[in-house]
Amino acid sequence: MPPTPAAPATGRAPDTAPGPAPEVRVPYDALLAFTTGVLRARGLPGGRAATAAEALCHGDLTGFTTHGLTNLARLYLPLLDSGRCDPQAEPETVTDTGAAVLLDARRALGLWAAAEAMDLAAERARTHGIGMVSVRGGTHFGCAGFHALRAVGQGMIGLAAANCGHQRLVPPPGGAAPMLGTNPLALASPAGDHPPFTLDMSTSVVPTGRIRAAARAGETIPPGWLSDASGGDVTDPAAYDRGEAELRWLGGDPERGVHKGFGLGLLVEVLSALVPGAGVGPQPVAGRKPTARPDDDVGYFLLAVAPATLRSPGAFATAATGLFGALLDCPPHDPDEPVRYPGWHEQRRSRERRAHGVPLSAALHTELRAVADATGLPFPDAVVSGGAV
Amino acid sequence: MPPTPAAPATGRAPDTAPGPAPEVRVPYDALLAFTTGVLRARGLPGGRAATAAEALCHGDLTGFTTHGLTNLARLYLPLLDSGRCDPQAEPETVTDTGAAVLLDARRALGLWAAAEAMDLAAERARTHGIGMVSVRGGTHFGCAGFHALRAVGQGMIGLAAANCGHQRLVPPPGGAAPMLGTNPLALASPAGDHPPFTLDMSTSVVPTGRIRAAARAGETIPPGWLSDASGGDVTDPAAYDRGEAELRWLGGDPERGVHKGFGLGLLVEVLSALVPGAGVGPQPVAGRKPTARPDDDVGYFLLAVAPATLRSPGAFATAATGLFGALLDCPPHDPDEPVRYPGWHEQRRSRERRAHGVPLSAALHTELRAVADATGLPFPDAVVSGGAV
Repeated sequence: MPPTPAAPATGRAPDTAPGPAPEVRVPYDALLAFTTGVLRARGLPGGRAATAAEALCHGDLTGFTTHGLTNLARLYLPLLDSGRCDPQAEPETVTDTGAAVLLDARRALGLWAAAEAMDLAAERARTHGIGMVSVRGGTHFGCAGFHALRAVGQGMIGLAAANCGHQRLVPPPGGAAPMLGTNPLALASPAGDHPPFTLDMSTSVVPTGRIRAAARAGETIPPGWLSDASGGDVTDPAAYDRGEAELRWLGGDPERGVHKGFGLGLLVEVLSALVPGAGVGPQPVAGRKPTARPDDDVGYFLLAVAPATLRSPGAFATAATGLFGALLDCPPHDPDEPVRYPGWHEQRRSRERRAHGVPLSAALHTELRAVADATGLPFPDAVVSGGAV
Repeated sequence: MPPTPAAPATGRAPDTAPGPAPEVRVPYDALLAFTTGVLRARGLPGGRAATAAEALCHGDLTGFTTHGLTNLARLYLPLLDSGRCDPQAEPETVTDTGAAVLLDARRALGLWAAAEAMDLAAERARTHGIGMVSVRGGTHFGCAGFHALRAVGQGMIGLAAANCGHQRLVPPPGGAAPMLGTNPLALASPAGDHPPFTLDMSTSVVPTGRIRAAARAGETIPPGWLSDASGGDVTDPAAYDRGEAELRWLGGDPERGVHKGFGLGLLVEVLSALVPGAGVGPQPVAGRKPTARPDDDVGYFLLAVAPATLRSPGAFATAATGLFGALLDCPPHDPDEPVRYPGWHEQRRSRERRAHGVPLSAALHTELRAVADATGLPFPDAVVSGGAV
């Protein structure tokens, strides 16, 4: 049961993390247009290519680089080129009760399919106060937080989760075989006058990309991330891709609540895969190796809650300004490290990068230029003024 | 900003944990009838007193003793006797869209009010596939898992969360003042042929009861649970009630993902308090001490998802049997410690205790007999055969 090797075709958190090499900044709009062009050239309709490109660039804008453009050449293009993802897929409505919709994504690219599903959830929430879109037949959807944030644009709270289809990456506590994926979970909420609150997390202690970045950098990792075959701590990150170590759940060990992390991973598996009938890691007969399957069959859970449908408009915003403002005003341990909440830094970073260009590591820059050449598209020029490097 | 002292009137995870003294086993039905009688004597209507008693005894049945009968004398009776909780409260419907309902609990006892709210969510989910009941004006609701499990009784998935109203127990990472409660979150799901999956967790690394139990036992606690005024580790649990240490979020420190635990605590605060307009810890103007308030104004989020409304009945059960069965079959690190999932042990324990009596620590037994005397009710005799001690 070696962990999925580097550059997995369906990996949730693939090999990435920019090294210390000099970075290049590229204007956001040009990067978005380029990415849209690459996806259109693969057969995606224009609007959906643009949505997918926005989802992908979100990682680089906000700093979630493990889920950004680094995945274009190593995850999404192979997914399209192998036929596991259908660029022209049209999701099919299986059930529609009004407040809840069950969709079969029919191997659509998750980057746009999950975004459209959240938009649909928000549309239903406007009427019903709550809207759920449950999706099966999907593929890797990128940053969970991107999809959750689409609800915030409409003044709503968005919850987005996905399992990893048939992939097995993380064993249960006390178990020696991986059984579930890293099952991401995101919640985004308007925060009144403050930047949106955006939690975007794997339910494993870290995503696999963090392990591989440490391995490349020749660093050791803290106890609590990896286990050996008997459950002991492994601090050599390279042991992961040698198949000698397994990833742990949030919490890391029993003292720090690893059963909670496992439970959260299962929460995501139940809501995003069992509800719509998507693929699950442990199929009826468990084995130590994932079965080769023709499709990913990833499941998503998208939930929108519309506070303004439930109580007087404005009341939520006032309360949110109070809550998040008080957190920002919390006296810090270190005066140089003011208290922030998840999403605050991401919005600041996103604004700065929209204004001054998106930094790409030298390696990623080279990779994307190769995609441009292969696709017959020009790659945008680097920023030469402002925040350019 | 000392933490709430022992026996807090509105504490989420009050002082408890049976010591090593000999325990007494009392028949479950008799314990339930006794607890119902005590609550009826406080003015609760019969059916609601019975539901509340069931919620309270759930802790002792399943092993969540920090949220069981230990709270009768130290939390719920003072809540009723002080007038902060209205035994005759009738929740008021603020909004009803069909799939979503917003209720004002009007200071009802959370033990029954949250249960009835989940029943309502499930009723709505039967029609709409999903049902949400959002509640403000509540009081402490006991075990979150009890409320989530009510949906399972109807073949549905239940999600239950509550904030802690105006209480402040946990600082944000890097912050020196407590800002939020321990914000519990539970999800329960049918698992086909296997015991229901039930995640029932505080979003803090441990509940306060675990800290106090260690203090009473004279033990040290692991790094990652408590912080001193500059954020350093505290391993003396007694420092908590001396006001010299603060509780941390799940993950414990940045390396283990404490920002995820904090984010999950905020997820609960947003869904359970900002949505319905309940009390929040950090009111608009933050201070280091909680303001004295006449009401608890705890908020709840109850969500039911009905798979059978969304796809063919039976399909969910088959998939769930496969998923949870495969987890139980996962090869364990230690052959004597088979892999289990959250809820498995709780169901086994609950069955054993229903059959052979519910164990009460000597201290709790004494406490409950005193409640019986004060109420003028007989306390049930201990079990004298079977599993009696």
